[in-house]
This record gives sequence, C-alpha cells and structure tokens, in this order.
Amino acid sequence: MHSQRNTRILPGTPWIIHVGMDDMTAGVAASGAALAHADFQPPGGGDPRRVRMLTDLAEAPVAERVDSANKIALERFQASQPHLVGVGTALDTIPGMEEGLFLHAGPPIGWERMSGPLRGAVIGGALLEGLASTPTQAEALASSGAIRFQPCHAHQAVGPMAGLVTPSMPVWIVEDHGGHNQGKRSFCTLNEGLGKVLRYGAFSSEVLERLRFMETTLAPALAAALEESGPVDLKLLMAQALQMGDEGHNRNRAGTSLLIRELAPHLAALPLAREDLSRSLAFMHANDHFFLNLSMPMAKCMLMAAEDVPLSSMLTVMCRNGTDFGVQVASMPGRWFTGPAMQVRGLYFPGFSASDANPDIGDSAIMETSGIGGFAMAAAPAIVQFVGGTVADALATTRRMARITLGRNSTWAIPSLDFLGTPTGIDLLRVESLNLLPAINTGIAHREPGVGQVGAGLVSPPWECFHQALSAFHQHVMETIPHHAEPV
Amino acid sequence: MHSQRNTRILPGTPWIIHVGMDDMTAGVAASGAALAHADFQPPGGGDPRRVRMLTDLAEAPVAERVDSANKIALERFQASQPHLVGVGTALDTIPGMEEGLFLHAGPPIGWERMSGPLRGAVIGGALLEGLASTPTQAEALASSGAIRFQPCHAHQAVGPMAGLVTPSMPVWIVEDHGGHNQGKRSFCTLNEGLGKVLRYGAFSSEVLERLRFMETTLAPALAAALEESGPVDLKLLMAQALQMGDEGHNRNRAGTSLLIRELAPHLAALPLAREDLSRSLAFMHANDHFFLNLSMPMAKCMLMAAEDVPLSSMLTVMCRNGTDFGVQVASMPGRWFTGPAMQVRGLYFPGFSASDANPDIGDSAIMETSGIGGFAMAAAPAIVQFVGGTVADALATTRRMARITLGRNSTWAIPSLDFLGTPTGIDLLRVESLNLLPAINTGIAHREPGVGQVGAGLVSPPWECFHQALSAFHQHVMETIPHHAEPV
Repeated sequence: MHSQRNTRILPGTPWIIHVGMDDMTAGVAASGAALAHADFQPPGGGDPRRVRMLTDLAEAPVAERVDSANKIALERFQASQPHLVGVGTALDTIPGMEEGLFLHAGPPIGWERMSGPLRGAVIGGALLEGLASTPTQAEALASSGAIRFQPCHAHQAVGPMAGLVTPSMPVWIVEDHGGHNQGKRSFCTLNEGLGKVLRYGAFSSEVLERLRFMETTLAPALAAALEESGPVDLKLLMAQALQMGDEGHNRNRAGTSLLIRELAPHLAALPLAREDLSRSLAFMHANDHFFLNLSMPMAKCMLMAAEDVPLSSMLTVMCRNGTDFGVQVASMPGRWFTGPAMQVRGLYFPGFSASDANPDIGDSAIMETSGIGGFAMAAAPAIVQFVGGTVADALATTRRMARITLGRNSTWAIPSLDFLGTPTGIDLLRVESLNLLPAINTGIAHREPGVGQVGAGLVSPPWECFHQALSAFHQHVMETIPHHAEPV
Repeated sequence: MHSQRNTRILPGTPWIIHVGMDDMTAGVAASGAALAHADFQPPGGGDPRRVRMLTDLAEAPVAERVDSANKIALERFQASQPHLVGVGTALDTIPGMEEGLFLHAGPPIGWERMSGPLRGAVIGGALLEGLASTPTQAEALASSGAIRFQPCHAHQAVGPMAGLVTPSMPVWIVEDHGGHNQGKRSFCTLNEGLGKVLRYGAFSSEVLERLRFMETTLAPALAAALEESGPVDLKLLMAQALQMGDEGHNRNRAGTSLLIRELAPHLAALPLAREDLSRSLAFMHANDHFFLNLSMPMAKCMLMAAEDVPLSSMLTVMCRNGTDFGVQVASMPGRWFTGPAMQVRGLYFPGFSASDANPDIGDSAIMETSGIGGFAMAAAPAIVQFVGGTVADALATTRRMARITLGRNSTWAIPSLDFLGTPTGIDLLRVESLNLLPAINTGIAHREPGVGQVGAGLVSPPWECFHQALSAFHQHVMETIPHHAEPV
C-alpha cells in the first residue's frame, strides 16, 4: 500500500537510504525501490537514561575536562617503560600474596560460581601446593573457604585463561622504568605450553610434573640468566614482534622467538647441567605462546600507570573469569563493572564444536586494553587462519577499533597500515556513544575441567560492563564537577 | 599550431590518452588538453632483431613447446625440498674445490677486472689461508695467477656480496630431499655479521680473527648440533619467515630468529665449553642476516632442480661480481649472459653517498631468482624503511614481478596479499616482451676494499644480459625445433 502511494508521489523508482532499525524497511523493499541500509544506532543503545548521561558528559566544560584527563591517562600509559627484570616466587614477590590465597583471572568470584576450567585449575593448584592429595579433597577444600580467592588484577598481576597463581609458583617480574609509575611492578606466571595445561583447567600428573619442572629448573635458570643480561625492554620487543606478524594475543611466535634468542646466550653461560639447559631451551621453543605471559604483564604495567586519573574515561582493565566479564576505568581504580562472559565466535579444533566451549575466560584481554591483540589484527594477517575471517577483516577490525580509542601508540607501529600506531586507550564514552564494543582475540577453553583448549576466535565484552561503568562514571564526574549541568 | 587545429576539429577540450614515447606529447600538453600517459614500450625494447626473435618464439607450435618446458622447470623447482643437513669445510665438501682455488660471487672474472670489495675479500682470503702474510703479498699472489678464481655458481655454491669461499672455510651443506634432484647439494659460507666483514671487502685482523672463531668454534658446534637435530626443512622455515615480515634478502630477522630457536636446544646438549656455547649463540643473535647464508643455498638448491630443461626460458641464476651482472637460463645450464653491474638506488648510512658505492655485487640475487627478496617485498612492509619507498611501493613491486614470472610459489604465501604465493620462475621471454626487469633488493658495498657496507636499496640487472640470453635462447630453440618457422 505504502509502496503504491510512494511510486505515485515520486517520479520513477525511488532510491532510498535507510538509517537505523531494520523492521521499517520491509515495505520499502517490497515496493521495488533501491534500498541502501546505513548502519546506525542512537548513542547508548538508545536508552533514554544513557542518552541523558552521554549528553551531560558531552557538554563543553565537562567534555573539556574529561578530554584533559584522558590526555593525562594516555600520556602516562605511553610514558611507561615496562622491563622484564627477573623471576621470583609468587609468595615472595607479589604484594599481598599469602599462603592459602589463590589468584585467578577476571573479576572476583567464589568457588560456587566458577566455571569448569577455573575449577579445574584450582584443583590442580591445591594438588601442586600439597594442600590436597586428590581432586575430591581439593574440591572440598576449595568449597569450604579454606582456600581464599582474589583476582590477579587486585595484586598487580595477570594470568591467561584460568590465570591461576598459587603461592609457590614462579612468576615473571616486570618493572616500570619510566614515567609516572617508575619502579612499580607487575607479575605473571610462566606459560606452560599447549594441550593439557593448568590454565585450561587440566590437573593430571603430567600437568603437575610440568609445573614442577618449571618451578625447579626453568624458573631458576631464567632468573639467573636475567641477572646476567640485565633488564629486557618489553615495549621494544613488542614493537619488533608487531613488525613480524604477531598481534600479541593469539599469535606470539615472533615475540617468543625474539625472547629466546635474547636469553639463550645468557642461559648458556650459566653453570647448569647440559640436560637442564637443553630442556629449558626446548621447552620455550616448543611453545609459540611463551611470550604471551610476558606481553600480558607488560600491558598491565603500562595500564597501571594510567590508573587513578580523576575524570578519565579510559579503560585500564578488561578481563574474564569464565563466568563474568569485568572492566575497570582509569578514574575509578579497583572498581569492577561486570556482565556475563560471552561465547567466543571462532574456529574449533577437530572433534570439538561450540557446544564444548566455556564462555570467555582469562586476563589476556589486557592485550586489547593496551591496544594490541584484536586492535592490532592488521599487523598479523596470518591470524585470520586461526580465528577465522579474511585479511580484509583484520585490517577493518584495526580501523574500527581506532574509532573507540583515544590515540595511536607512539611505539607500536603497524607496517601494513603505513606504520600507523596501534589504536590505543579504549574510551568508555566512545564505546557507548558509537555502540561499538572492543574486539578481542582469544583462545576457547573446554567447559569441563581437564580437557584444555578446543579452539580460538573473536569475542566482545557484554554491554552490561559498559552500561554500569557509564552510570558510575557519570556519577563520578557529577561529584567531581558539581555544577557541570548549569548552563554556561 | 597543432593545438589550434585540434581544438578547431574537436568540440570542446579534448581528452587524450598517449601511448608510448614522451617527446610527442609536448604540443598536446601545451594546447590545454587533458593528457593521460600510458606507459608502453614495444617488445624487445623495439629493436627489430629482438622483435623478430620474440615473434618467432611466440608462434603457436614453438610457444606451446616452450610453455611445456617452462612448466616442467617450474614443477621441478617447486618439488625441490632443500634441507640443511650439516656443516663442512669447503675443501672437503664442495665438488671441484681445490687448494689455491678461490670461489667468488657472480659470473667469471679475473683479478685485473675485479672491483674493490672483491679484491679486498681475495686479500683477506689469502691472509686467512696463510698464502700471504701481508696485503701486498696477497695482491701480488692474486695478480700472478697463483690463486685461481672461479664462480661459486660453477660449484653448486653461492655467496653474498664478494661471496669469497676459500678451501679452509666452513660451509653450510644443503641437500635436496625431494623431486628431480634428490640428494643433490648446495653450499654457502656462514654469515660473518655486519660492519667490517670479508664479504664487503674488509680484511683487518679483527675480520680474520672472527673468521677463525667461526672455523674453530662456531662451525664445529653447528655441525654437531645438526647431527643431533637431523635435517632442517629450509623451505618450511622460509615460509614461516615470509609470514613474519622477512622478504628473505635484505630482511632476515625472522629466519634468523627461527633458526636460533630451532638449533639452541641441540647446541645446549653438546659437550661444549660454556663460553664457546654462549659466544656461538650470542654471535648468531647479534646478526639479523645470519639466515641469509642459508636461504641463499636453499634457493640455489631449488633452482638447480630446474636446470637442464631443454626449451625452458626460466632463469636459474642472477648474480653479480661487482663488475658484471650475469644470468643463466634453465635450457642452457652453465652458459653466462652478462652485462655491466649497475649502481644501486637506495638509502645510505650516515656519512656515505652514491659516490662511495660499488656497483651491484653478490650472489644474493639468487633470492629474487627463486621469487623472494624484491619479488616478496609485499611480505615485508618494514623493508621500505631500509631500502626506501613506501608500503604501497612494496605491494606494487610484488604485483609487477608477477607479470614476468611463470607462476606462484606453492609453499611461500604472502599474508597481506591474501596468502597468494610469491611470484616464481622469472621468464626471459616475459622480461623481454614486457620490457620489465626483475627488481632486486640489495646491500651496497663501499667501492674501496676494507670499508664495508654503506647502504641498501633496489637495483635491476642490465638489459645486456637479457638481450644476449634472448639471442642464445632463440638459437637454442631454432636448433631444437628446426622447422619452427614453417607455416603450419
């Protein structure tokens, strides 16, 4: 009906550009008119309360102060100079670490809400620490409250997938050698390798034996080699890796290779048994993700430098515990904004499918928070073979992420984009205003404990985190600039 | 005048597309007409004799047989499986190597026509071999004929820059594990590193001491490690390096990193003194071109498999001795077609300029002959910072080289071009028909002996090589298919 009226009013077949929701276009399409759909959603997903908050925050005097704060946060992030300085034991080096305390990936969570892979890792951790001698004992202990749980992020630490850190585990020590946070440290365990590993919830004897080799042989060797070599500039190493096809989250082959060649001469100079030296080098060589557990605390170290800047809307944490996704914002350090962890869209290893997949898990989204991983996909066209999609998708993702970020990284350049810096500093307000979520590259864990990785792909945070964070940020700004709403 | 007539005849301002030589367009441009210039040259540079030869070779029955031969040559190239199998002494391993024989890069040349860097390397070689105890004695010996000179290529070997191989030098041994040439070997010395090195014509005591360390410590360690590790698949390693930003000629950081991490565990297991092991690993780590001396014999090994295919117009050698550029063609193995080595267009290290540059030198153009280096520039956008130009230039160069090649490499993919294979198998007839020379990435040597590298850039072969090769190939085809010119 409408179409008949249209064609009577307009001469010829109309060309229509439609902006907004799809359900208004059916009649137009039926009329035979040429229809182009322009993707558009109103800011804040169109929710009147969020539109009102975004409008408040966009008013000139407020927006100027938020911009200035974001400039400071971004500058502090860029001025950070994370260096690998050593390897120590979690209990001795991580602030606030105690016997009986287990750190985990993502926002806070208790045993009862933990997903399969995180529970599996906790069981493995209890066995490793000698707190239990069977998985059943370990579960009982964990559910009794005898083991306490806190997020890695609450202790300047990060961990991939389950992200479990127990007191006796060796950890990399990363130290800031520049800018606002000089001397501050971040921490991460050493990467165990692929297949059945603790971070994917496996806890068999093979897993525990490997962790013991890492504790007794690999970690002391690396610690001694680092004393010989002196600090390793991780930001520079990452810059080289990005020029060598890594995106720093799901592809870490270049970073791992560069780290091995850097450390090998120093390892070789140590008074080690030949078999221990050879096994340590072979262990690192066998695992292309070995560098991930160094790039993660590097990113954490840099993002800590941006924390505690009043009025800044820059994200400083994105992470997942397998049940919840959590974010933190520079102006409200330590406050969690959470929502349900999402399913990963990706490619599965043979024999597995989406029904095997645990929801999104791990602190490794700290890479995207620092402008790498999904944000640097253009640097790693080969990644599309692993997470799905085309090379054009990889370029488009990096370009799209530039819309929700505050600037370009001053050190990390992407060759294929004419050496443009990676999009850096995710802005909560841009995410909400543009209805555009961060893109995260990630591994997929099996939902049952003990199975391991079943695939890899792309995921976004749930909107809930950002909506909560927007409310809290609006309130924070209102309190900090009380008269912002008055006309000027 | 012309322009006035034009505008009288044609209504309005004409749009003119000009094809061919520039000197006809001045009048048109002056008339105010819009002028687009389409780059075009007649085949064979327009030389009537070459046009006639190309016409002969393009006749259907001839062209079909040449195409079939090229298919065989390309298939044999692709089926080759070069593996690193060991390290030996030149005298013991290179076929035809003798005391008093020095191998050099490029086509044959005597002392009197050698350029500065090659003479410098010969002096260093004579000192290293103990044939002379001063540079003056070495020069006298070299010019007297007491030292004999032959090309590396005449001995299944290749060498970067001066490419000097003396009898006592250690060489990598690469062996073909597949296809037509199974079991056949190629050879190359170990890369010395950057700065003042023999291959750039330096022969100071520092240079000779380094060569002695390589002979007495590094080479035996690598030989023993390879016995432990077994053969290393070089084609696979190269494929990975191309996905990690190497183009395999001027950028070898990924290949070098991958080689180090592959060999380090085996080196560490050897009964070596700790300081020797550490120094060997540090030596390889300090030199991002260490892998070049392995990718070169890899390419040579593959191209040898394509040699001796009657009627094939595929190039199997491109190389330079610092004075002459030489090429060989699959159907006429061992025959040299030469022209003057050209000046490299590139970027110079601080303090140096084009007036310091030696003409093009080295066997490393074997990389381009195998479809890497300049042909794979799209794989290595970072290379443009080293040789000049933009990322778009790098992509354009790879696309342009596809016009003069017979196919796409089946193993070596370029991620940024949606995993298209590198353009592979340079066709003499396409080069001549399209007037399009191969693009070569290369280092620039100082023209005086003993100075070293002064820059890096891009160079093309001289046309003379191809014109000579075309004449010889035409004759070869005429002799092989005597009645080709008869109408069918």
